[in-house]
Amino acid sequence: MDSAQARQLLQGVQTGSIAVDEALKQFQMPPVESLGYAELDTHRGLRQGFPEVVFGQGKTCDQIIGISRSILERENRVLVTRVTEESAAKITQAVPALHYHKSARCLTAGMPDSSMYPGFIGIITAGTSDIPVAEEASITARMMGHQTQLRHDLGVAGIHRILRAHDWLLTAHVLIVVAGMEAALPSVVAGLTERPIIGVPTSVGYGSHFNGITALLGMLNSCGSGVTVVNIDNGFGAGYAAAQIHKLTALPTHE
Amino acid sequence: MDSAQARQLLQGVQTGSIAVDEALKQFQMPPVESLGYAELDTHRGLRQGFPEVVFGQGKTCDQIIGISRSILERENRVLVTRVTEESAAKITQAVPALHYHKSARCLTAGMPDSSMYPGFIGIITAGTSDIPVAEEASITARMMGHQTQLRHDLGVAGIHRILRAHDWLLTAHVLIVVAGMEAALPSVVAGLTERPIIGVPTSVGYGSHFNGITALLGMLNSCGSGVTVVNIDNGFGAGYAAAQIHKLTALPTHE
Amino acid sequence: MDSAQARQLLQGVQTGSIAVDEALKQFQMPPVESLGYAELDTHRGLRQGFPEVVFGQGKTCDQIIGISRSILERENRVLVTRVTEESAAKITQAVPALHYHKSARCLTAGMPDSSMYPGFIGIITAGTSDIPVAEEASITARMMGHQTQLRHDLGVAGIHRILRAHDWLLTAHVLIVVAGMEAALPSVVAGLTERPIIGVPTSVGYGSHFNGITALLGMLNSCGSGVTVVNIDNGFGAGYAAAQIHKLTALPTHE
Amino acid sequence: MDSAQARQLLQGVQTGSIAVDEALKQFQMPPVESLGYAELDTHRGLRQGFPEVVFGQGKTCDQIIGISRSILERENRVLVTRVTEESAAKITQAVPALHYHKSARCLTAGMPDSSMYPGFIGIITAGTSDIPVAEEASITARMMGHQTQLRHDLGVAGIHRILRAHDWLLTAHVLIVVAGMEAALPSVVAGLTERPIIGVPTSVGYGSHFNGITALLGMLNSCGSGVTVVNIDNGFGAGYAAAQIHKLTALPTHE
Amino acid sequence: MDSAQARQLLQGVQTGSIAVDEALKQFQMPPVESLGYAELDTHRGLRQGFPEVVFGQGKTCDQIIGISRSILERENRVLVTRVTEESAAKITQAVPALHYHKSARCLTAGMPDSSMYPGFIGIITAGTSDIPVAEEASITARMMGHQTQLRHDLGVAGIHRILRAHDWLLTAHVLIVVAGMEAALPSVVAGLTERPIIGVPTSVGYGSHFNGITALLGMLNSCGSGVTVVNIDNGFGAGYAAAQIHKLTALPTHE
Amino acid sequence: MDSAQARQLLQGVQTGSIAVDEALKQFQMPPVESLGYAELDTHRGLRQGFPEVVFGQGKTCDQIIGISRSILERENRVLVTRVTEESAAKITQAVPALHYHKSARCLTAGMPDSSMYPGFIGIITAGTSDIPVAEEASITARMMGHQTQLRHDLGVAGIHRILRAHDWLLTAHVLIVVAGMEAALPSVVAGLTERPIIGVPTSVGYGSHFNGITALLGMLNSCGSGVTVVNIDNGFGAGYAAAQIHKLTALPTHE
Amino acid sequence: MDSAQARQLLQGVQTGSIAVDEALKQFQMPPVESLGYAELDTHRGLRQGFPEVVFGQGKTCDQIIGISRSILERENRVLVTRVTEESAAKITQAVPALHYHKSARCLTAGMPDSSMYPGFIGIITAGTSDIPVAEEASITARMMGHQTQLRHDLGVAGIHRILRAHDWLLTAHVLIVVAGMEAALPSVVAGLTERPIIGVPTSVGYGSHFNGITALLGMLNSCGSGVTVVNIDNGFGAGYAAAQIHKLTALPTHE
Amino acid sequence: MDSAQARQLLQGVQTGSIAVDEALKQFQMPPVESLGYAELDTHRGLRQGFPEVVFGQGKTCDQIIGISRSILERENRVLVTRVTEESAAKITQAVPALHYHKSARCLTAGMPDSSMYPGFIGIITAGTSDIPVAEEASITARMMGHQTQLRHDLGVAGIHRILRAHDWLLTAHVLIVVAGMEAALPSVVAGLTERPIIGVPTSVGYGSHFNGITALLGMLNSCGSGVTVVNIDNGFGAGYAAAQIHKLTALPTHE
Repeated sequence: MDSAQARQLLQGVQTGSIAVDEALKQFQMPPVESLGYAELDTHRGLRQGFPEVVFGQGKTCDQIIGISRSILERENRVLVTRVTEESAAKITQAVPALHYHKSARCLTAGMPDSSMYPGFIGIITAGTSDIPVAEEASITARMMGHQTQLRHDLGVAGIHRILRAHDWLLTAHVLIVVAGMEAALPSVVAGLTERPIIGVPTSVGYGSHFNGITALLGMLNSCGSGVTVVNIDNGFGAGYAAAQIHKLTALPTHE
Repeated sequence: MDSAQARQLLQGVQTGSIAVDEALKQFQMPPVESLGYAELDTHRGLRQGFPEVVFGQGKTCDQIIGISRSILERENRVLVTRVTEESAAKITQAVPALHYHKSARCLTAGMPDSSMYPGFIGIITAGTSDIPVAEEASITARMMGHQTQLRHDLGVAGIHRILRAHDWLLTAHVLIVVAGMEAALPSVVAGLTERPIIGVPTSVGYGSHFNGITALLGMLNSCGSGVTVVNIDNGFGAGYAAAQIHKLTALPTHE
Repeated sequence: MDSAQARQLLQGVQTGSIAVDEALKQFQMPPVESLGYAELDTHRGLRQGFPEVVFGQGKTCDQIIGISRSILERENRVLVTRVTEESAAKITQAVPALHYHKSARCLTAGMPDSSMYPGFIGIITAGTSDIPVAEEASITARMMGHQTQLRHDLGVAGIHRILRAHDWLLTAHVLIVVAGMEAALPSVVAGLTERPIIGVPTSVGYGSHFNGITALLGMLNSCGSGVTVVNIDNGFGAGYAAAQIHKLTALPTHE
Repeated sequence: MDSAQARQLLQGVQTGSIAVDEALKQFQMPPVESLGYAELDTHRGLRQGFPEVVFGQGKTCDQIIGISRSILERENRVLVTRVTEESAAKITQAVPALHYHKSARCLTAGMPDSSMYPGFIGIITAGTSDIPVAEEASITARMMGHQTQLRHDLGVAGIHRILRAHDWLLTAHVLIVVAGMEAALPSVVAGLTERPIIGVPTSVGYGSHFNGITALLGMLNSCGSGVTVVNIDNGFGAGYAAAQIHKLTALPTHE
Repeated sequence: MDSAQARQLLQGVQTGSIAVDEALKQFQMPPVESLGYAELDTHRGLRQGFPEVVFGQGKTCDQIIGISRSILERENRVLVTRVTEESAAKITQAVPALHYHKSARCLTAGMPDSSMYPGFIGIITAGTSDIPVAEEASITARMMGHQTQLRHDLGVAGIHRILRAHDWLLTAHVLIVVAGMEAALPSVVAGLTERPIIGVPTSVGYGSHFNGITALLGMLNSCGSGVTVVNIDNGFGAGYAAAQIHKLTALPTHE
Repeated sequence: MDSAQARQLLQGVQTGSIAVDEALKQFQMPPVESLGYAELDTHRGLRQGFPEVVFGQGKTCDQIIGISRSILERENRVLVTRVTEESAAKITQAVPALHYHKSARCLTAGMPDSSMYPGFIGIITAGTSDIPVAEEASITARMMGHQTQLRHDLGVAGIHRILRAHDWLLTAHVLIVVAGMEAALPSVVAGLTERPIIGVPTSVGYGSHFNGITALLGMLNSCGSGVTVVNIDNGFGAGYAAAQIHKLTALPTHE
Repeated sequence: MDSAQARQLLQGVQTGSIAVDEALKQFQMPPVESLGYAELDTHRGLRQGFPEVVFGQGKTCDQIIGISRSILERENRVLVTRVTEESAAKITQAVPALHYHKSARCLTAGMPDSSMYPGFIGIITAGTSDIPVAEEASITARMMGHQTQLRHDLGVAGIHRILRAHDWLLTAHVLIVVAGMEAALPSVVAGLTERPIIGVPTSVGYGSHFNGITALLGMLNSCGSGVTVVNIDNGFGAGYAAAQIHKLTALPTHE
Repeated sequence: MDSAQARQLLQGVQTGSIAVDEALKQFQMPPVESLGYAELDTHRGLRQGFPEVVFGQGKTCDQIIGISRSILERENRVLVTRVTEESAAKITQAVPALHYHKSARCLTAGMPDSSMYPGFIGIITAGTSDIPVAEEASITARMMGHQTQLRHDLGVAGIHRILRAHDWLLTAHVLIVVAGMEAALPSVVAGLTERPIIGVPTSVGYGSHFNGITALLGMLNSCGSGVTVVNIDNGFGAGYAAAQIHKLTALPTHE
């Protein structure tokens, strides 16, 4: 229920067309669809600009199927993240509208064909092994109506690789930098552009890399000003945040 | 040196007005002013839109004085962060142009009077003890030409406090949420708006709070989509990133 | 042996009906049944109000079978926690009185049909993936004679979900809040009720969630007053503590 | 605003005595008093049974004075925790109604003389050094209208010390066990009673005690069923939770 | 080479029966047998009272077979620890003299039938799941010529279980206490006896138990005086240390 | 109360010279002297061979004075550990019988002049900075009636330093090895002797030494068989354990 | 492009044989070959003396095949590390020039037959289980044209094992010391030689060894002067660094 | 004692000029001077090329004075690290030969005027705050007879700063890179040169920097091949290792 609906309801009470108890009940009924094991937030699109995303990890196939169907009844888009190849096979059989992106481990339906915003979100990886996380970010941003461009394997050990991408960097409105190991890339990129940079540490590494903690800490302590960070391997979160940021390019003048 | 200057240089070589060795030297002379203990990045304003910020912690008063003076010779603005009250007294005596903000622990000179961008960056604290970090963020963003609005003590233990700020929330273009303890506030805020949210964990807490690690981890694992995070107590980083994001509202149409 | 029995024994010694050495031996014979690999605490029901619960993890099937049989010879109830589906199949074949609860990973026998106490223990989950832990808590409390009600997927990212459950919240005598990720839900719930709240952090999450440490730390540092916490994924402990607390509603007036 | 007030408001709208816009405004005005640096939750007493408690750490003396005065204007009780002796001297001079408890580091005003509930909350320490934390818990519970009894230095290295307190243990309705070092005491106590037990780990120890982490982990992994835990040195939280639990002994029959 | 041999060698040089270069070579040839992948310390029995023990983890079956054979050529005893059931099957086929102890995961040959020392080493477990570690300790001590007695499942949650074993405790010369979870048992035992106590933390537990770290920290911070600790699950180390300690009971009077 | 006393009491009940209620009371009165803030374990000497040791850290001077006086009324010896120089000045003024050992930070009264046991406990330090911890161990063992010998600065970086102490090493009955940094010394010592070795990690080091954690972990993972470990800087614990072990050399033959 | 080439280019511009735009393009075209998922650094050999090494972990077989082929088209040598036996089978089928080293988990092509440098790199392991890491180091150094010698199982628990290798130690120009557990070996070796020592901690150990963290910390805190350290199990890094160091023995006199 | 001396000794025994017992004693007398609290390794210069360095932290002024004097009696050089300004004042008064380097916190005597080796060791800092650690490294290397050159404030946030130092980089024989925060600089430098690189993480940073752990982990996980690392803030260790490496440039041809 948004403000307009609330005002309408109160006017109904004022004119007597709606009983007090009925109005009271409406105020107590939030916009939720209950599946027993899940409370779908049916107004999230209204409130946040994108329908609820399904975090697949820890859910059974039956739960994912049920939630996806429920969303698709009301919306034209659905995004499910963190789905194994094995689960995806079962789920797509039950919900054929869903398409599986193997590397990104996502299921999608209704991905927009074109972007609603000028320009693009640039996504960079430090190494080949970081690609799957970058693709999760890309799919998320594209599902939200944004265009993305990806450049891979630009890690700082061969510093000329990122330097030769400098011109391209300057054309991106928002940048997502995906890196494992010591995750030095965002610091260098931050020094080359004035655009917002979101760092995604990955679990790529071994030993004292601690499944991505080192990369995470490296990004949080970046000497490059203005780098913000999301959780380890959280391509979805980076793509979502980048999309929210990128939307600011299309604000109506009066806002 | 930017692209235009590089082209000019090469044309000089072509026409013979510039010797090869001279041109080679120019290509090897980056835009840096050397103080011995510091290499000032004199083109940062050109490249990143804001002159180099001085991180005061770990520097001697003499070093801060020297660097500030050097910047002020070339720029009209300077920002020094993490300066203790005791150091600030010595530094402002030597460099009277600098003004000390006690709560935020910053020195500034040349803070702009008015904003260059439409709207404002909203800064929220969960508790009274988080205010100094919020003020560091605010000063940083204001130094970069943005307007800020601060709202304090809106933590989730009294959930109606953030809910009654909902309308205000919706008018901010970018949000900075500053919180210690379990740092639950960004998750709730993320569910109430579609604007970008930067979380700043603070070291406010005790025991298993580990000087802010708990708040940091809480924000990194937020169930609210699209929250990005900076280092513990890093008000500067949040203000800087928010300003970079907010600048997107004023992009020329053709970009 | 309780106080009454001790007094009886000493009176026997006084009257000569019990020899000193015999009495001494009785004082040295604690209420334990020895299986070699386990010392069953046969008086725990007397002392703590519920017979010994079997922690299945790390025990062989043969050990669980032996212990369960031994308890069932003396008691009408048994609860075994942390049993895999594979082990459960073997054990229920050997001890048909046991029933397996797949999601909660518990074996039970003799679950009471009705509650001995007024009202109920409310159990809330932040997300769908937290349900198994909530069910372990529910089964534990029900085995101890309490009624439970469960509500799922009320996480704070859609804050209206918990708000619309506010009335129900106020009717619960004790609350168990089960949450992974940043585990912000207990803080919000604590602000909405004056009833005791037990937080159960779950291992639901990834990356810097560290298998539940982030959720645990978040709950320990909750800004909501009065939240107490149990170990990660410890549904049993939460259910047990909630039952002990709930029993206080039925204390005889003179206690 | 509680449910009764909401119904009254709507009836006013229905009868025309209250304008729609006025009612809408009321629904948007939460029960908060704004001090600029703090948003006092003025309905917390109504909602949670006790007015807002002031966490003193990280607040300036002026802020504590302002908040305390504001609460005392509306309530007859105030509790401020984590106040150093030095700050307390300044604050009590400004707000003479406040009394400082040195060992517990609390300021209080309006502590009730008598208990509103039958029986008492038992508070146990493992060692002499744990006493200050126990006293913070005691003062908190007493401020909320409960009677407490404290027993000190009952650590398990001399197991007969806790065993001889067994009879007393059985008379307490709720138990708070305060322990540092390896924090084994709650496990032993849990085996001796069927009452709820709240463990408070303390920072008493050295070396691999890590300022209380070892005690915290020990309590979270207690082999004693039903032990719940609060943050390190969090006497306030334990006292608050114990009071919430103890209130269940006085529930009206019809609840 | 021991002192006596060194003196003999020098006397040979003195009398001319041994050449300088030959003696020099002898001084440079330490008591080691080289297998390429291992340097067997052939004098360890002489120096430390027990031949080299083989740590099986991380070694291939072929390496264990080779090392075992080499030791058995020179010694009448061999002990291999940390051998999986699968590897043990291959190894015992190749070296039939070896016997596999499944629960303890050890291979042994030449275990002494009788003890060379008065009295026994007492080994206690807190729970059934700790038994395998206790058995590794027992086999190690028995291989070194000591008698052991084991008592299981004496954890502190039912404190009478350890109390009723008090008389037995007092008859042991050395005690090994094996415990997981919060590992409170050594603290209680330390208060009941004046004999040396070695604590062995086990990885039994879950969540914030961190695979035994909590138990380890608990034992290191024991309030019971004189508890020493070995690595998590290190039954071998505890058995070895207990044997070294127990040997002091049989020191010749003049030592 | 020991077994003999218990038997006497029961015989008194049998013959009628002691009333049942009186006997019951005796069984319920453990050997404790209550100071309010401390429960002195007055039978510890009987039970563990040494009166209660006072852990000074976290106790006020008044508490230490009170406890020391109380012990000295019943015993001829007292040991207080972890006392700062400043506190010691106040305490020795109030209790002149106490003597302060500055480097070891201990207060003692009644230290025995001669040893009750054959041989000695050898105490080794890796570096000069480890000496204070070694002295705490030495004073503890001497208070318990044992002779000690100390050798300093034998760290492995100059391996010949420990090798030249080899003969001396072989004459010690028990060894305490005190080391900071990587704490490699116990591993080397363990290979040179068959006597029990107790490792004491110290907080000597910096950076990734983490106040002694690295030394602690190094000792727990020693490749030298039979090394047991106490908490960081816990000289007292090592001295106490060494004394308990050393006592085995003087066991009566029939034990 | 190196300095000589840059000068040539500029001279071409000067003489008019190269157009400005063409030269500009050359300056913007870094030496990279793009495979889409990887940016091969084709000038690394020129710049660092060895072509790019492929880190196999986290890459698909197809990616490794593609990268290897691309390198082999331009270079006569390739090294791929961290390849499982299963992957190696697929890859060597597709690229027969590659040879798999099972223990070291490396693929190589074009390993030089003879060394280009005087002397050798000495590689020492503390235990048999450390051999695979040592072999990865050896293969890396040999691929870079250096001779290596390996000595195994020289851990400090039998200190004479490393002492008898003293003469050999003194002949090595650079030393790599590979050790797990407490990793004490580098400290001892550092005291026996004046040559550079690189420590490689391994994940060999268990419990509080934390998969190699203890060994890593031990080496970082070594009391032996001049020990440098690489990541856990990073044989490649140690071999690479040793080769870079060893090259200094062959510097032209004038450098 | 070196090999030549050992042979001489044995020849003396052979010819009868030296008694067996005398020779035996010589073999047992290692080259150590005993000060009671320290065992000076008087042959370290012979064995490792530089006399023992005194680690000042944790030692009393009297101990440092005693050790320094003892070294200066035998050697012409002494280096004491980690000395506070306050201690240095006392020590230099007692030992006037010592000179204090305030920023580096070192005391030195006998620093060589000229270098014994061709070329120099290059020392780079990422920021101004890293300078003290760099100076400790420089003084150490210079004391050992090497020339150093320092370049400051070349962090990657302004990547052109390190790029413009590229030519200088290529002239250094060994590189020490000192960096705090995320410590990305070694990775970039490693890609620009084929010389050995030693990374020194510093404690410069805050929040999740954890006093240098983040910088340490970043360097250990560097994507730049061949970077080795020393402990946090360990300028001494880096300078020492760099000197050992640099000495290889001056090896006699026949080695």
